[in-house]
Amino acid sequence: MSRQELEVIDQDATCCPGLAAAPLDDERATELARVFKALGDPVRLRLLSMIASREGGEVCVCEMTPAFDLSQPTISHHLKLLRQAGLIDCERRGTWVYYWVLPGALDRLAGFLTTPQTAGATPQTPEATA
Amino acid sequence: MSRQELEVIDQDATCCPGLAAAPLDDERATELARVFKALGDPVRLRLLSMIASREGGEVCVCEMTPAFDLSQPTISHHLKLLRQAGLIDCERRGTWVYYWVLPGALDRLAGFLTTPQTAGATPQTPEATA
Repeated sequence: MSRQELEVIDQDATCCPGLAAAPLDDERATELARVFKALGDPVRLRLLSMIASREGGEVCVCEMTPAFDLSQPTISHHLKLLRQAGLIDCERRGTWVYYWVLPGALDRLAGFLTTPQTAGATPQTPEATA
Repeated sequence: MSRQELEVIDQDATCCPGLAAAPLDDERATELARVFKALGDPVRLRLLSMIASREGGEVCVCEMTPAFDLSQPTISHHLKLLRQAGLIDCERRGTWVYYWVLPGALDRLAGFLTTPQTAGATPQTPEATA
């Protein structure tokens, strides 16, 4: 696929070709693996979903903890890993810390995974393309 | 967001709302975390990218091993984890095993991550929506 085709799909990405555009180099794979690893845990996925789906875009940690059978330090640790992966950010206001999804972070990741065929052609199968 | 809006974005998904549509339940989070965990490793990401970016859609394991400083059993183990996550499939032909990306698997995952705003509105930020 051409770089131009990729940009049609991945409008939010400013730098990098997608997974299906060309074989990933080691450096980029290491960087992206860190993000996917952060998503590779049910508690972190639920936390991220709670934040991403919230009307207004931000959630107090005090609202997240009661949804889990986990201590607040454990929840905070999971949130820290999501933050270190560049998916969310936070701000302390008084007693509580508020979290939001970093604009574009999820869409860039989605763009990375989107295959060229999504732009309008039929899905690629070994039978169809061999 | 409405279910209808989601379907516009996530045309390949047949079942499930996205991460930003509503808080994930534990069962779905567990299932998806397994897929992201499979992606959370640089070697597996590079293998998947090698397969996904291949013209024709499939790659012999014999072509993948030389790209890594790893044994073939290790490569095969990583490929097995990608297969168990529902991202790729394979077939033995003679001496070698050939791998391809399962049609729709990456696009479904991308659709799950895509936020509603991608459909045309401006990105959601805490400032813009608070």
